Amino acid sequence: MSAGGDHLVRTFRREETGYRWDQVGVHAYNAPGTVSNRITKQILFHHDDTLCSELRYFETQPGGWSALERHDHVHAVLVLRGSGRVLVGSEVTAIREHDLVYIPPQTWHQFYADPEEALGFLCLVNGERDRPSRPDAEELSALESDPVIREVIRY
Amino acid sequence: MSAGGDHLVRTFRREETGYRWDQVGVHAYNAPGTVSNRITKQILFHHDDTLCSELRYFETQPGGWSALERHDHVHAVLVLRGSGRVLVGSEVTAIREHDLVYIPPQTWHQFYADPEEALGFLCLVNGERDRPSRPDAEELSALESDPVIREVIRY
Repeated sequence: MSAGGDHLVRTFRREETGYRWDQVGVHAYNAPGTVSNRITKQILFHHDDTLCSELRYFETQPGGWSALERHDHVHAVLVLRGSGRVLVGSEVTAIREHDLVYIPPQTWHQFYADPEEALGFLCLVNGERDRPSRPDAEELSALESDPVIREVIRY
Repeated sequence: MSAGGDHLVRTFRREETGYRWDQVGVHAYNAPGTVSNRITKQILFHHDDTLCSELRYFETQPGGWSALERHDHVHAVLVLRGSGRVLVGSEVTAIREHDLVYIPPQTWHQFYADPEEALGFLCLVNGERDRPSRPDAEELSALESDPVIREVIRY
């Protein structure tokens, strides 16, 4: 990580507007070429020469969603707060605090916060990874031919 | 991870005896050559050819502690439940739910649950890593020459 030894322990703060940690910046999140809605990203542990992966915290406000995307790298997710649903491939599953979600390579996925509650989740990725891609018109059409997917996806 | 595609979402269960997830085994934890006390380990996401790191959940019962050890690889920790203290190098810090702790390479460390409450934490490590070492008599003597360390360490 990149705290340089000065901040080995970083304190958590619970705020009206979301979960925050000392010395961790909060960023509005829209992956290049993708669309998401009311979601923020915080990098809790950076990838560096001591750590091959990166641990991020994403928070979607009530009714918001993450980008609809896929990529070669995998996501290993643990829900930290709230509840919602997740699309993984062609399955939609309800998720809540402390549930685990694995997103395999090249699998369409999207997270949805419940209407009344923020959804916050840890997302572990390899430090070295490819960029996400979002569906083109043909892929969207194929996705929407599945009624389960059509009912949930946002883009 | 090693769920093989059948269990992309794994549900969390809160039990009297600790936090549990579907399809995740619980192991009493004593690293080789080290001593710890009333601690269990669950591997939430395994290291494999898609994921360079491993996410584990350790839970120390009230009044318990983890092994006193050090190693080349780093730990990136997020407290998931309870409260306690952590020794990192020569510093002892109180920790509670959602605090972050970074353990640098070759730094003595040990986690302590508060007497009345279990301490549960996520611990991220590289998949490829060295084995921990515990202090020999000379190193213990050096550690105990620091009153801050002497007050907390258990072995």
